[in-house]
Amino acid sequence: MSGISRRSLFGLGAAGVAAAGAGAVAARVLADEPPAARPVSSSSASDAVPFYGRHQAGITTPAQDRLHFVAFDVTTTERAELVDLLQEWTAAAARMTQGRDAGAFGAVGGAPEAPPDDTGEALGLPASGLTLTVGFGPSLFDERFGLAGRRPPALADLPAFAGDGLLPEISGGDICVQACAHDPQVAVHAIRNLARIGFGRVTVRYSQLGFGRTSSTSRTQATPRNLMGFKDGTNNLKLEDTAMLRDHLWAAPGDGPAWMDGGAYLVTRKIRMHIETWDRAPLAEQEAIFGRDKGEGAPLTGKAEFDEPDFAKTGLGGEPVIPRDAHVRLAHPTSHGGARLLRRGYNYVDGSDGLGRLDAGLFFMAYQRDPRRQFVPVQQALAATDPLNEYIKHVSSGLFACPPGVVDASDHWGRALFA
Amino acid sequence: MSGISRRSLFGLGAAGVAAAGAGAVAARVLADEPPAARPVSSSSASDAVPFYGRHQAGITTPAQDRLHFVAFDVTTTERAELVDLLQEWTAAAARMTQGRDAGAFGAVGGAPEAPPDDTGEALGLPASGLTLTVGFGPSLFDERFGLAGRRPPALADLPAFAGDGLLPEISGGDICVQACAHDPQVAVHAIRNLARIGFGRVTVRYSQLGFGRTSSTSRTQATPRNLMGFKDGTNNLKLEDTAMLRDHLWAAPGDGPAWMDGGAYLVTRKIRMHIETWDRAPLAEQEAIFGRDKGEGAPLTGKAEFDEPDFAKTGLGGEPVIPRDAHVRLAHPTSHGGARLLRRGYNYVDGSDGLGRLDAGLFFMAYQRDPRRQFVPVQQALAATDPLNEYIKHVSSGLFACPPGVVDASDHWGRALFA
Ligand code: HEM
Ligand code: HEM
Repeated sequence: MSGISRRSLFGLGAAGVAAAGAGAVAARVLADEPPAARPVSSSSASDAVPFYGRHQAGITTPAQDRLHFVAFDVTTTERAELVDLLQEWTAAAARMTQGRDAGAFGAVGGAPEAPPDDTGEALGLPASGLTLTVGFGPSLFDERFGLAGRRPPALADLPAFAGDGLLPEISGGDICVQACAHDPQVAVHAIRNLARIGFGRVTVRYSQLGFGRTSSTSRTQATPRNLMGFKDGTNNLKLEDTAMLRDHLWAAPGDGPAWMDGGAYLVTRKIRMHIETWDRAPLAEQEAIFGRDKGEGAPLTGKAEFDEPDFAKTGLGGEPVIPRDAHVRLAHPTSHGGARLLRRGYNYVDGSDGLGRLDAGLFFMAYQRDPRRQFVPVQQALAATDPLNEYIKHVSSGLFACPPGVVDASDHWGRALFA
Repeated sequence: MSGISRRSLFGLGAAGVAAAGAGAVAARVLADEPPAARPVSSSSASDAVPFYGRHQAGITTPAQDRLHFVAFDVTTTERAELVDLLQEWTAAAARMTQGRDAGAFGAVGGAPEAPPDDTGEALGLPASGLTLTVGFGPSLFDERFGLAGRRPPALADLPAFAGDGLLPEISGGDICVQACAHDPQVAVHAIRNLARIGFGRVTVRYSQLGFGRTSSTSRTQATPRNLMGFKDGTNNLKLEDTAMLRDHLWAAPGDGPAWMDGGAYLVTRKIRMHIETWDRAPLAEQEAIFGRDKGEGAPLTGKAEFDEPDFAKTGLGGEPVIPRDAHVRLAHPTSHGGARLLRRGYNYVDGSDGLGRLDAGLFFMAYQRDPRRQFVPVQQALAATDPLNEYIKHVSSGLFACPPGVVDASDHWGRALFA
């Protein structure tokens, strides 16, 4: 296995050009250099997020700018083949997140007669903050792999919600991988190479590109805007909220099967926005719907973004200043026994829909300790009365158990699950 | 009209919060500040590309990282309404490219009872190198607007090419706008606001997001990689090639109607890649197909990216080192009487296709002086014998006459065309 970094390949490539023979082409001769000679350059290491750890990266990691999310269906019926794949994937993920090639089977350059071991489009690009986060869907726990008894109770199928317009072909999935990075080419490259490695054992069920984060997950980040033009992520669970992360994010001993201790549950919802209708809604209506102002993101009872909303405050007519059905009131922890989510969604634009409208919206993702007590009640409240529903449609849904982190090179994705 | 920059709105928003009345929400009071009080901040101006000039920006402008391309169908049948729209669009484009809101009808904040004049999702973001480049398709020159006599001969319908698999719903269009920026949110915002302004007069026929440039258009830029993993843009027409730009890029007096003098013709081709098949092709085959090596991007007869290819050089068996059907040989100027293109394409990933394959490829865009002598013969040669065809499919096609630049605030998109 080569330790080559994508960046250092740049410099080595030219030196590796061999004279071309009859009808043949120049071969790269990178594979025979010892790994020690090709450390990750400091510039690529500097923006690499550590892969190994107690929790998976990509959850509390300050949200990167770009997303490529994929859901796989497992096609092999051999448990051992699936475990092999998870091991190969883990090795490739450990490499790619550090700015190296996927190289599961050797070096990038490879032999001329073999397909390259990395698809190459990220050659020369640094790690770009890439994180790869894996999750296991409810369907993985059917009869195929003998996992039925290991399904966590918190991975209970989501109920149907009022107004859902879910398309099965872009919902669900046996295994998901969330790739986040500052460079979309790096996120796309990572998912593509995992799909390539999985050939014959998994197929891509659906994948989604997100072009801009809609949440901040750290107090060091400015709050970005969603495609409705509002700041999104203000009152999110964040990296710095250590005690709240313990209570609301990470699965703990006693919650369910031990293989999930230190993991978290991910709910994904692709939420199409009726952009053109929204754009014709008056500013006052838009602000009333969210309960926050559009410019600052301040609660309608405050002035600055991080002012606490005063839900009790009434205006001249005795009506609450933050309407009874405002999104931030319906979704607020106080309305759900304190339940919080770590939201980590992305804006998407999939072109237009053939009726002259942008096919755009929010690819909502939220991590949590138990969806039954967090996502589900919040979404039930929103689905029932949120006036935002006039402008949105949930078109896909996913639920995944994201195990704890891979602790070192001897560990791999799903090791405890399959142990 | 407000001169507010998206960035400075941030600071003003909080001060503008008025007390909320009965059931009402806080209104922003930004509109009544004189424009002089709200200059574009230097940080947003610093990455703004000038909008006014002899040529449109977005052609020789060093290719930005992200694309949102849109093709509109004109729905109004009133020539005057179309001209009004082009004027409103020009005003909005002049503002947005300088990091300001779209504000065609007033200030961003606006009145609470009116829809905001800007959709808001780019509030706080700098200009991000945004360029907006307009083009007119052949269909605009039908009987509707009395333009039939003004259609440039160079805007001749493209012939059918061998292997084309064009989908009409994502091909053609009366008017296109190419939005390029370093931040996808800024590019998306710009197209969306143009669509909003065009409501009732145009509809979006199709739109395409490109997540990473596949060409460099300036010698100051590093060559990026396409999704086949190869450096793309090495032997491109570039900003610095002044004499060649005059000969191969800009329409000149005598070429056709005077309204196109200083303009250029754009050909777009959405080219789907069979990624999974490509990823299984041996490295030697991949390199032979392009005639360049994958690591460096050097011609197979050279060592460094910018070495001149030696098409005559033969290997041991007497076969040319750069194969007879290599992409760079087929597309090279010497094979087409010196014809060159300014390529400015983008990688795209539209998710996956329901058959477990990535729906990904190249949104090819090329600017030129006359497609009949440039794009058409090159594509005819490629369509006939390029072995790359085994791995790609052209699924959409567009042809547009991009007029010269808007020279100042009294000028507008299409002024000379409609004069
Ligand atoms: C397109 C759909 C949605 C949009 C545009 C949207 C937008 C927003 C905005 C602008 C805020 C206020 C700023 C903030 O604190 O982040 C917010 C807050 C929030 N949203 Fe959403 N949201 C959407 C869907 C959802 C869904 C499906 C859920 C979960 C079921 C959800 C849960 C929350 C929560 C928990 C908060 C924080 C409330 C608080 O504590 O103040 N949102 N959302
Ligand atoms: C998916 C489709 C395509 C891919 C992946 C591709 C890729 C490449 C690559 C890797 C190069 C070599 C580096 C460079 O000089 O930029 C190249 C060169 C070039 N390509 Fe393509 N290309 C594609 C389609 C096209 C099409 C449709 C045209 C025009 C009809 C075209 C015209 C050219 C030209 C003019 C050159 C420069 C040749 C030279 O002067 O050396 N390409 N392309």
